[in-house]
Amino acid sequence: MVDGGGASSSSVRFRGDGSGARSDGVNAPAATAAATAATAAATAACDAMATRTLVLVRHGEGSWTRENRFCSWVDQPLSADGEAEARRCSRLLAAAGIRFDAAFSSLLTRAIKTAWLILEGVGQAWVPLAHSWRLNERHYGALVGLNRAQLALNHGEEQVKAWRRAYDVRPPPIDEAHPYFDEIHGDRRYASCDVPRGKIPRGESLRDVLERLLPYWEGSIVPELRAGKNVLVSAHGNSVRAIIKHLEGISDADILHLTIPTGVPVVLQLDDELAPVGERRYLGDTAEIAAAIKRIEDQGKAPKGASASPDPRGAVVATTATTAATCPSP
Amino acid sequence: MVDGGGASSSSVRFRGDGSGARSDGVNAPAATAAATAATAAATAACDAMATRTLVLVRHGEGSWTRENRFCSWVDQPLSADGEAEARRCSRLLAAAGIRFDAAFSSLLTRAIKTAWLILEGVGQAWVPLAHSWRLNERHYGALVGLNRAQLALNHGEEQVKAWRRAYDVRPPPIDEAHPYFDEIHGDRRYASCDVPRGKIPRGESLRDVLERLLPYWEGSIVPELRAGKNVLVSAHGNSVRAIIKHLEGISDADILHLTIPTGVPVVLQLDDELAPVGERRYLGDTAEIAAAIKRIEDQGKAPKGASASPDPRGAVVATTATTAATCPSP
Repeated sequence: MVDGGGASSSSVRFRGDGSGARSDGVNAPAATAAATAATAAATAACDAMATRTLVLVRHGEGSWTRENRFCSWVDQPLSADGEAEARRCSRLLAAAGIRFDAAFSSLLTRAIKTAWLILEGVGQAWVPLAHSWRLNERHYGALVGLNRAQLALNHGEEQVKAWRRAYDVRPPPIDEAHPYFDEIHGDRRYASCDVPRGKIPRGESLRDVLERLLPYWEGSIVPELRAGKNVLVSAHGNSVRAIIKHLEGISDADILHLTIPTGVPVVLQLDDELAPVGERRYLGDTAEIAAAIKRIEDQGKAPKGASASPDPRGAVVATTATTAATCPSP
Repeated sequence: MVDGGGASSSSVRFRGDGSGARSDGVNAPAATAAATAATAAATAACDAMATRTLVLVRHGEGSWTRENRFCSWVDQPLSADGEAEARRCSRLLAAAGIRFDAAFSSLLTRAIKTAWLILEGVGQAWVPLAHSWRLNERHYGALVGLNRAQLALNHGEEQVKAWRRAYDVRPPPIDEAHPYFDEIHGDRRYASCDVPRGKIPRGESLRDVLERLLPYWEGSIVPELRAGKNVLVSAHGNSVRAIIKHLEGISDADILHLTIPTGVPVVLQLDDELAPVGERRYLGDTAEIAAAIKRIEDQGKAPKGASASPDPRGAVVATTATTAATCPSP
């Protein structure tokens, strides 16, 4: 059932604890000939050990990616490039020979569509796919819809990095006057969740994401993994980071350095206790993966030569009325 | 929640008991101005009565449709035209304003993809979609892969119509030497069903289809409908016929006359006891729907001017070896 090791020649391993991150925040690829040999050895060990495969995918480019805006819980569709990224994922997974038994996604269309395209591409459209809000992207609160680079100009790159990557930093909450509040919090999909509408978060730290994700992880995903099944999770940058933090025991400090590239399957082999066997592997071309990570890291940097300005696309403001007025329309 | 009545101007009603079928087997559209008025009145009655909406869709054209072969349990994908049909369905359902709460499909990719395209098109990709072999197309046994028109030449149109439409006529069973046996019965998806592999059917009458479908209908779909939810079922010609027969109490004899057009949403309003309120409606253009039904009826006719021949694409033979030899490759 577990045949993911067949992709060793096209897979990249990264350090599991974040300590391998370079000083610029780009994780260091280690796909040398030696690493390939090590991969093969680890794969053989995995095969002997009765592991199951967990594949985590951060959906590809959404229609707001090019605008560098926090999409978060706004249900923007995949762009054409994002669809192409999902299809490329499916080719990598097909080449790795992974046979899924169960799949999970968030309630957001871009993650669901990514799961569909992957399952269709590997000829496994029939694999059951369940959706939960608990796999949603981090709720960026009042930052939803704002431009990351402009935010960096107005609030500093460190503040933006903290909002995006730090474990315990919660953005200012969304309120009812925010231009995307109704679109998100009034949506029918959140009326049928396992918590009442009033308990749906309005702004989350990564810690919050992990805490709301864990009941679904333990209740719905873990039972499949414990039964020896291979599982696909199609989710988002921060929900994938939360799962990896949980599985690999990454510290609250080190998780800052973990960036998940879009459209790249992250493959973990798990033992019977669901402890990772060997390091996580990223399927695909080493240089492309490193470039994809760097692109995401750079989103939070201020444009060179620009200075702080009152451009509303980057302003986080305290008063309700102004937040509403300054957040751009879709 | 039930807002399907908004499509009355583009919906067509057919007689529910099959007695409205024309002598050539084509159901008689009744979308006159009077019918439209009646639809509006019935819709108003439905609204007052707290109904739920059931939408049944027979997937659009598959890649074997043009070759006029029995596809049955062979997992052929939708053709480009079939995908376009599914998208058209979604536009009709979006115009009708139907909000789904749950969706179901077979284990076959063409029905699953149809459900995906519909849900995506109506902006409801997050609606849970469950798959079951019990919604699969009828298993056509030894006829799988054979050409309908050639079968009509060799066995007569009446025999082909009986195989395709009669309630109790079971085709010869598929056996292990059939060229599609392994592809179907060896497939991994049938290893995780609610019956052991050995109990998966090898050839079915429509009665068999209804009997294997009912446990899933009662156990998984009915609870959603009883809870007042709107349900989409994306399935196949014969699984849709079986559901309609069951819901509308169509007799074993009359079901022969019921043909479901591909890519046309069939809408039923159901009361609290899940009895149909008003007649079933077909969304779309009256003339196009009638033409679609006629095309399907005509598939089982022998080509004009042709005569019976040993062309293997139309031969059903008793011996295993010959069946294997004469059934075309995909």
